[in-house]
This record gives sequence, C-alpha cells and structure tokens, in this order.
Amino acid sequence: MPEFMDVHHNMVGITAEQLKEAHDADLAIQGEEQVNFKQAWADPDSGVVYCLSEAPSADAIKRIHERAGHPADEVHPVPLVV
Amino acid sequence: MPEFMDVHHNMVGITAEQLKEAHDADLAIQGEEQVNFKQAWADPDSGVVYCLSEAPSADAIKRIHERAGHPADEVHPVPLVV
Repeated sequence: MPEFMDVHHNMVGITAEQLKEAHDADLAIQGEEQVNFKQAWADPDSGVVYCLSEAPSADAIKRIHERAGHPADEVHPVPLVV
Repeated sequence: MPEFMDVHHNMVGITAEQLKEAHDADLAIQGEEQVNFKQAWADPDSGVVYCLSEAPSADAIKRIHERAGHPADEVHPVPLVV
C-alpha cells in the first residue's frame, strides 16, 4: 500500500489532547477507505501537523480527514523512504 | 531529546539513490551536533522531502543539512506525537 504524508496548516495552539482527539476521529472511520494513519506530529507554535499514512490514494486520505473535521491542506505520496 | 520535522522543497525528480546519498551524508556528520536523523520521506513529483530527527535544537539540524549540501527550507519542532 502506498505511503503518504499529509500536512495541515493553521493548527496554531493545538494541544496533545486535541491532536489525539483528531487522530482518534480519523482512526474511527479510516477503515471505510482502507486508510491506515500511522503517526502524526504537531508543532503548536507554527500550527503545522504532519500525518503519515498508508492508503490506496490521496483522495481516500482527503475524504477521511474531511469527514473527521480537519481537511488536509496538502497530501503527498512519499514513494521514497530512507 | 526534542523531535523535529524538517522540510526540503525543490527536490523534484529525486531518486531513491539520491535520497540515500543525501541521508548518508547527514548520518556521516550528525554526531558532531548530537543530531539523530531517524527517517526521511520523499515525493519526487512535487519535490518535497520530510526528515524526522531528534536534536538539541533546530539550528543543529540546519547546520548538519547545510554542511551535507542540502539546506532545509523549514525546520519545525514537533513536541506532540500521536
């Protein structure tokens, strides 16, 4: 399954609890699109959040994030990993 | 040790071999700044590369990437991980 990194901007001030709630909202419905959100990293000061996932397509990730209430600003396939 | 995500733009067309060479160049000198580059993901189509690391500071990461020949365009502390 291809890997993707998606990015959210404008999450300034996000807390650990809010990151977990957002991640849990993704996990609750990700199976409907065969998406597997593996990890997420947040910088509350700049408001950027990075999510690493495996998914059949970028559109599947976009749909899950939108339905969970936090649409992604960027979704990049990352076929190269080291 | 704090975690960071740094981002390189303008790496369009990067190959698996080039990503590995760049990563190896970082690994060869990272110890001089107590940086630990853990993983990197690349999207050759959009030219974006994400690097996850542990480091004492963003400046330490910037110095290693600069000396290795590929300065980072963004370096974000990511104190929140889920």
